[in-house]
Amino acid sequence: MELIDGNQVAAAIIAELKAEVAAFTGRKPCIALVRVGEDPASVSYVKKKEKTAAEIGLTSRVILPPLSISQADLFALIDQLNADPTVDGILVQSPLPKHIDELAVFRRVSPAKDVDGFNTLNLGKIAQEDETGFVSCTPAGIMELLARSGVDLKGKHVVVLGRSLIVGKPVALLALQKKAGANATVTVCHSGTTNLPALTRQADVLIAAIGRAEFVTADMVKPGAVVIDVGINRVPDPARKTGYRLTGDVHFPSVSLLASKITPVPGGVGPMTVAMLMKNTVKAFRLHPAQ
Amino acid sequence: MELIDGNQVAAAIIAELKAEVAAFTGRKPCIALVRVGEDPASVSYVKKKEKTAAEIGLTSRVILPPLSISQADLFALIDQLNADPTVDGILVQSPLPKHIDELAVFRRVSPAKDVDGFNTLNLGKIAQEDETGFVSCTPAGIMELLARSGVDLKGKHVVVLGRSLIVGKPVALLALQKKAGANATVTVCHSGTTNLPALTRQADVLIAAIGRAEFVTADMVKPGAVVIDVGINRVPDPARKTGYRLTGDVHFPSVSLLASKITPVPGGVGPMTVAMLMKNTVKAFRLHPAQ
Repeated sequence: MELIDGNQVAAAIIAELKAEVAAFTGRKPCIALVRVGEDPASVSYVKKKEKTAAEIGLTSRVILPPLSISQADLFALIDQLNADPTVDGILVQSPLPKHIDELAVFRRVSPAKDVDGFNTLNLGKIAQEDETGFVSCTPAGIMELLARSGVDLKGKHVVVLGRSLIVGKPVALLALQKKAGANATVTVCHSGTTNLPALTRQADVLIAAIGRAEFVTADMVKPGAVVIDVGINRVPDPARKTGYRLTGDVHFPSVSLLASKITPVPGGVGPMTVAMLMKNTVKAFRLHPAQ
Repeated sequence: MELIDGNQVAAAIIAELKAEVAAFTGRKPCIALVRVGEDPASVSYVKKKEKTAAEIGLTSRVILPPLSISQADLFALIDQLNADPTVDGILVQSPLPKHIDELAVFRRVSPAKDVDGFNTLNLGKIAQEDETGFVSCTPAGIMELLARSGVDLKGKHVVVLGRSLIVGKPVALLALQKKAGANATVTVCHSGTTNLPALTRQADVLIAAIGRAEFVTADMVKPGAVVIDVGINRVPDPARKTGYRLTGDVHFPSVSLLASKITPVPGGVGPMTVAMLMKNTVKAFRLHPAQ
C-alpha cells in the first residue's frame, strides 16, 4: 500500500505556482477573501488561504463584513469586487449566516473570478469540457492527486460515493471527460443506493465523499483499489486534549490493508483545496489579465 | 414486455399544452425557429416543429438565413431575438454550416430563451437541481417517458451508455437528482469502458445513446430491465424504397424478449423531443412573461 501524501503534492503545486508568479512582471494576481463574521473554523481557513497566497507571491485582500451584513450589501460588495480590475479571484468563505442565501451569493461572483468554482456557469463548463472555466477546489484537488500519483483513469471504473454539488457531481463529470488522465467509466452512489457494497467493490478508484465517519469498510473495497477519502468528520475521543479526533469517510485501519493507494485524513485531499484555490487564482489572472 | 409508446406519450403532452395555452389570454407563447440553409433533414425537422407549435396554439416565427450567413450576422440575429419581448423561445436547428462555431451560437442564445437547453448555464442548473433552467429535449423526453410509464428510478441502478453533452451527461444528472421519480444510482459507460456487458447487465434501467446501430444485444441486458433506446441509425436495406431502414442502438428483436419495458425506434424517444421543445417554450413564457 502506498500512501498518497496530500501535503507533499500540495507543496509541489505551491512551489510551481511560486515560480510561475515570480515570472510575472508588474501586477501580481490578487485574491479577495471575504469572510462574514467570526466563525472559528472560517477564521482559520481564511488565515491559511492568506498565508498560502503570501507564500506564492499572490496579493490577497481580506474583507471582513460583520455578521449582520444584509444580502443586498453583500451583493454590492461582490459587485464592487467583480468590477475591480485589480482583483482576479473572489472567495466567499462558507458558511454564511442563515439570513443570507448562500447559493445566490456564490452565483453573484463573476464567472471569470469564481476561483471557488461554485458559479452555475462554471459547473456547466465542466460538463462541456470547456477549459476556460474554474473547477471547484476539492474535485480539482482529487484529479490532481490522482494524476500526480500516477493513476490514469482511462478504462478504469471510478465509483463516487456521494452526489454533492461541491464534490460528487463535479468529480464524476471530471472523471468522465475525454482528456488524458480521465476517460473513466463512472458510477455515482449515494445514501439511497441499493446494495452499495456490491457497487463500491467494483471500483478501481473509489472516491468517498458521503460525510459519514469511517463509513467505507474493508468489505466494500476491492483489493488493489485506489481509495480517495474526501470526508473530514469529528469523532469524540476522550483521549485527546480537544476531545475529538478527525477521521475520513473511510475506515483507514482496515481499508488501507487492501488498497493499492489511499489518502489519509488529515493530510490527503484536505491540503489540496487551498493549493487548487491558488492555482485557480493564477489561472484567472492568465485568462483575464486586464479584467 | 410492454412497449413504451413515444407517439402516445408525446400526444398526451401536446394535448396538455394545448389546454394550457388555450387558457392564456392575450399574447400566446412564441418560438423562433432558425434554420440556416436547406439541409433536407433540417427542413423536415423545422416543419414538424412549426406544425406542432400550431397544433398547440403557439406562435412560431421561422427565420431562414442563407447558408452563407457569417457567424457575426448569425450572432446579430440571435441578439435581436434575445431582445425581442414577443419571442419566448429560440431554437437554432443543428447542424450549422462548417464555418460557424455551433457551440458559440448555442451559447449566444439567452439562457432564459434557451428552450433547446444547450446553454452552459442551463447545463449547470441541471447539476444544481435548479428548476428555473431548461433541460435539453432528448433527456427531458426520456425522463418524461419513464415517469409516464410508471417507472420510478428511486433506488434503481440506471446505466447510461454514451456520455454526450446532448443526452448522456444531462440524463445522468437528471436521474441523480433528489426529486421524486429520480434518485437513482447512475453509471455512465462509453466507448472506452472496459467489460461493458458486465456493467450494462447490472442496469435496472438501461439508456442506450451511443450512436451505433443495434449495439446493445440480449447478452448485455438483465431480464426485466427497462430499456430506453435513444439511437436513430440508418441501416442499408435494399428491400426498402428509400434503401435504408431506421434502427436504434438496441437490437430490438432479441432485447425486447428480455426487457420489462422498451422503447421502439422509431416511435420511442424520437417523438418526445418536439413535445419537450414545446413544453420548454411554454415554461419560458410562464417564467418570463414580459421578457
